[in-house]
Amino acid sequence: MAFRFFSRLFPQDFDFCELFEKQATVAVDSAGVLKDVATDGLNDSHVAAIRALEHAGDEAAHAILEQLDKTFITPFDREDIHALANELDDVIDQIDTIVNRMRVYKLTAASKSLLEFANVTEEAVSALAKAVNGMRNLKNGHVSVEEACVEVNRLENVSDVLRDTVLADLFETEKDAIAVIKWKEIFQDAEKVLDQCEDVAHILRSIVLKQA
Amino acid sequence: MAFRFFSRLFPQDFDFCELFEKQATVAVDSAGVLKDVATDGLNDSHVAAIRALEHAGDEAAHAILEQLDKTFITPFDREDIHALANELDDVIDQIDTIVNRMRVYKLTAASKSLLEFANVTEEAVSALAKAVNGMRNLKNGHVSVEEACVEVNRLENVSDVLRDTVLADLFETEKDAIAVIKWKEIFQDAEKVLDQCEDVAHILRSIVLKQA
Amino acid sequence: MAFRFFSRLFPQDFDFCELFEKQATVAVDSAGVLKDVATDGLNDSHVAAIRALEHAGDEAAHAILEQLDKTFITPFDREDIHALANELDDVIDQIDTIVNRMRVYKLTAASKSLLEFANVTEEAVSALAKAVNGMRNLKNGHVSVEEACVEVNRLENVSDVLRDTVLADLFETEKDAIAVIKWKEIFQDAEKVLDQCEDVAHILRSIVLKQA
Repeated sequence: MAFRFFSRLFPQDFDFCELFEKQATVAVDSAGVLKDVATDGLNDSHVAAIRALEHAGDEAAHAILEQLDKTFITPFDREDIHALANELDDVIDQIDTIVNRMRVYKLTAASKSLLEFANVTEEAVSALAKAVNGMRNLKNGHVSVEEACVEVNRLENVSDVLRDTVLADLFETEKDAIAVIKWKEIFQDAEKVLDQCEDVAHILRSIVLKQA
Repeated sequence: MAFRFFSRLFPQDFDFCELFEKQATVAVDSAGVLKDVATDGLNDSHVAAIRALEHAGDEAAHAILEQLDKTFITPFDREDIHALANELDDVIDQIDTIVNRMRVYKLTAASKSLLEFANVTEEAVSALAKAVNGMRNLKNGHVSVEEACVEVNRLENVSDVLRDTVLADLFETEKDAIAVIKWKEIFQDAEKVLDQCEDVAHILRSIVLKQA
Repeated sequence: MAFRFFSRLFPQDFDFCELFEKQATVAVDSAGVLKDVATDGLNDSHVAAIRALEHAGDEAAHAILEQLDKTFITPFDREDIHALANELDDVIDQIDTIVNRMRVYKLTAASKSLLEFANVTEEAVSALAKAVNGMRNLKNGHVSVEEACVEVNRLENVSDVLRDTVLADLFETEKDAIAVIKWKEIFQDAEKVLDQCEDVAHILRSIVLKQA
């Protein structure tokens, strides 16, 4: 009886992992939309899709933070749960920002340069999703978390070089200053997604280290 | 005697609310200057006014942080007082940044688009000032704090849509690339004021929740 | 015996100051490269030099954070050591960002305006290095730390005014919009170095105040 009472007071078994897996799936889907936009050129269905994903991402983050408020004993440090939810949300928001900006700037053509960023983004977000899944069983999973984090760091470096190449090329070939203004911002936004993926990887690694 | 001694050691009744009300008034006045700039076009008296307000804002924030250092028992969490003072200051600084940038970029014409931002900003900053006043009596005031925070969140969404509309219009109508560079930055700055108002609202809400 | 055992467990005498002095030297050298770039125009040896310094800065920061993990009793607050290492690294990274961006944007001419920023940066970074050296002996050194911090605050104000002057001049004289896009970003980056120097100064001051 007493045990039941306490387990209701301290629902330590609440499945935070499931909520994070859901949030990571939204990030993976957002990266997929970015790839479609870069491949096919932006259309209304992309705009609707990314808006829906941004809402789903907000709800996923909100559900985690709300559960955190109700839970006394958490599987990981409270601040880490808080930070992970917020920074995964930043990844989703940043992809939404890119697609929305393209809509506002009427950048509706396909773009090989953006596709290169979208591919790197998809790889990074998939690695993060794998790492989030690895958290469910840290005993066996910490290796996969570490591998995913190393991979995300590598991809962040790739995207730095990519941004330099793409911007150099933009200034070399695009003589319309207003087009330069628009695309420069999009490419710099695209590189930031990888910075934010790296922030997520840092938190995941720190969670794993504390459990070790 | 003992009581007097302790009350000197622990001046828990220090009126932090008064200092925050002063700081909020500076923010309201800054929003007023932004509205004048947008309505009349920028002139030297606006530049002088915003500079004086920026100084007054710095002094208000400084007074709060100094008092915080001297006070052992505070009416709200120390970190919340610290954060509230800094983030209200960010609102004031951001409005100062906009007006100063317009001076540097010689943007001296009235602007209907900027006026729309200035109106939203004025509403948001007034709501924050109302919420700050509500903190004085949290028993009756917490409803007004909550209402003000909901209102600021609404206005932040309004300003996001406004930024998209105004930037789409800028790219549509302005063919001088250098004018685009200047105004794009001003409008993006103007939207950031609302993000910062939302940050202030979050802290106010968190203070109220902890007192509940 | 017992003493030896404990001193191995608690290596409180670990020389964090030496590591910070090393990191500060990297910052001073980076500022020197920025000055060379502004004076002579960018060439390949500058690019190589700043890349090497950026790596050295990363290693210095990494060494401090690694040592922090191994050390139970630290000469200053753990969070302050952490913040100081990261924010000194931000100064170095920001200078690297400027030089790298100039390479990508093919801005290879000498620039009097950039030289003015580089001079202010060199003064600020040298003041920080002096303050870092002052931490070694806080009894006598705290005056020099305080003096250096006052100096960095002064230089940050100088760089604000400089940015306004330089940007006003850029918009006045440069009629090629694409050149405006490039240089505007470089000058705004250059001013940010001083903001980051001020952040470092704030931490140094806070360390000194806690030891007082």
